[in-house]
Amino acid sequence: MTTLNFADRVHDEMRAKKSRLVIGLDPVWKNLPSSVRYAAARQYEMEAVNHEAIVWALREFCEQIIDATRDIALAYKPQVAFFERYGSDGIQVLERILAEHDDLLFIADCKRGDIGSTSEAYAQAYFSLPDAPPAPLPAAAVTVNGYLGWDAIQPYMPYILSGKGAFVLAKTSNPSAADFQDRLIDGEPLYVHVARKVAQWGAQCVGACGFSSLGLVVGATYPDAARAVRAAAPQSLILVPGLGAQGGSIDDAPAFCSDGHGAVFNFARAVIYAYKDEPYKDKYGEKGYAQAARAAAELYRLKLNEVLGAP
Amino acid sequence: MTTLNFADRVHDEMRAKKSRLVIGLDPVWKNLPSSVRYAAARQYEMEAVNHEAIVWALREFCEQIIDATRDIALAYKPQVAFFERYGSDGIQVLERILAEHDDLLFIADCKRGDIGSTSEAYAQAYFSLPDAPPAPLPAAAVTVNGYLGWDAIQPYMPYILSGKGAFVLAKTSNPSAADFQDRLIDGEPLYVHVARKVAQWGAQCVGACGFSSLGLVVGATYPDAARAVRAAAPQSLILVPGLGAQGGSIDDAPAFCSDGHGAVFNFARAVIYAYKDEPYKDKYGEKGYAQAARAAAELYRLKLNEVLGAP
Repeated sequence: MTTLNFADRVHDEMRAKKSRLVIGLDPVWKNLPSSVRYAAARQYEMEAVNHEAIVWALREFCEQIIDATRDIALAYKPQVAFFERYGSDGIQVLERILAEHDDLLFIADCKRGDIGSTSEAYAQAYFSLPDAPPAPLPAAAVTVNGYLGWDAIQPYMPYILSGKGAFVLAKTSNPSAADFQDRLIDGEPLYVHVARKVAQWGAQCVGACGFSSLGLVVGATYPDAARAVRAAAPQSLILVPGLGAQGGSIDDAPAFCSDGHGAVFNFARAVIYAYKDEPYKDKYGEKGYAQAARAAAELYRLKLNEVLGAP
Repeated sequence: MTTLNFADRVHDEMRAKKSRLVIGLDPVWKNLPSSVRYAAARQYEMEAVNHEAIVWALREFCEQIIDATRDIALAYKPQVAFFERYGSDGIQVLERILAEHDDLLFIADCKRGDIGSTSEAYAQAYFSLPDAPPAPLPAAAVTVNGYLGWDAIQPYMPYILSGKGAFVLAKTSNPSAADFQDRLIDGEPLYVHVARKVAQWGAQCVGACGFSSLGLVVGATYPDAARAVRAAAPQSLILVPGLGAQGGSIDDAPAFCSDGHGAVFNFARAVIYAYKDEPYKDKYGEKGYAQAARAAAELYRLKLNEVLGAP
């Protein structure tokens, strides 16, 4: 098991694949291609939708997307909610996806954060130390909600110092992010204070690439916020969700970077459900959803490189 | 399935059991009584600790605690992290505990909170609407992290308006809660702003009891914060963690109430691991852990009533 710094792993992978693209695995039954839903139905000889068929379809869909994009995607970001929504069976699907692709980078988007003893249990769910048995949900990195302060983050640090990564929510991509995150404290929004604190905490895990494995989440929908976060946290690795379906634009990508580096960009619905949209819809059809995802992913990979330069 | 307002259910149960006591289910293998750990080892004929044995022990321990305290505890608060820590098998244990005791109130302490479409998936993991099939992890209420604002909470509202409950983190019980929660915005700490917003959002689900089913979390370790929250949110039902092992005191309980009402108090380690402490240690031994938990729970129930008056 590697003990390479996570930020360095990200940058190595970025250069090897010439890609800053993270693919968000957000499988939702009603959005799955009819070909997958029919196959699930046949598999379980069912007339109405049932739990087993849905769970089978989640896995089939994610596996096909991964297989079709593994040389293009820098990393995958499974949104844990879409698996947890089906209870232990959904979590088992995620476990298998994570365990079966240990050559790929997975960022488990779980946004957990709790008091110390509890955050430790979450850390153990996703992370193990080098040479220890793998965690149940073996991820390379997680997202963390830092509302509880340092206590919520500290239990992840031994793992981060041994090659794992974490991204703490600074400014999220959703419309109501401003409710609390934009409130001014000493003249600066809360999310800047979060970014500055996380940068301090993450100073101990800056890699050779110049970025820290304790990074930040900043939504693509808020490029001005990204500039403020970058000023407060120039060495933080930033995970940028909210591109595509949520409205963020690749043209704003430089705002999330430090001199063109240190950010990775997540596309979820715009890649995995590309089969629903032109020009992919006509070209690939529902059955060709994985190839449609590949084509969309390749387009976004190239557009990111066009805007930011080859990594 | 009942559609009674959650806050009213809580108050009915409070009066019926004369109890404001919530028991926190925080099962950690190394803290389990040796009798349970030996039984698990025998069950799986193992020499070293293994995953199956641990998972068996988690369930056995929680079931025995519940059986011994069900007439004393107003509700149970399973901390999801301690189940998720064992992946899908751990989540399955929680599923079974929740499904098998549908006569009891469970507050799933998951602190989930995400953008709208994702929070919806979390809501579906824990909640179902009346007359719909049960959710995979059927809880009466959840805890929510509100850092993402209204988006993170809105998807829970249809369920809350149909009898479920949610407690949004205002001031948490941990030592570093102050890192962000105490920062002043317009002269008031962030947690007061959160409390005020949640009180507004929760105005639509105030029950006959006068309290809202969209409530707040305020740690027992911060009674001054509780007074400020109460001033900002007099009708919010408050879940109070942090009593016992974390250092919060029952004597401060009135600070969390509005005229002595509207708060429930969680004891976790001080009840479930009471068998480790005097006077229970000598009296019950490790095998009598469930009776020790009952004795401790009964003590805290009565102390709460002494300080706050019979509910």
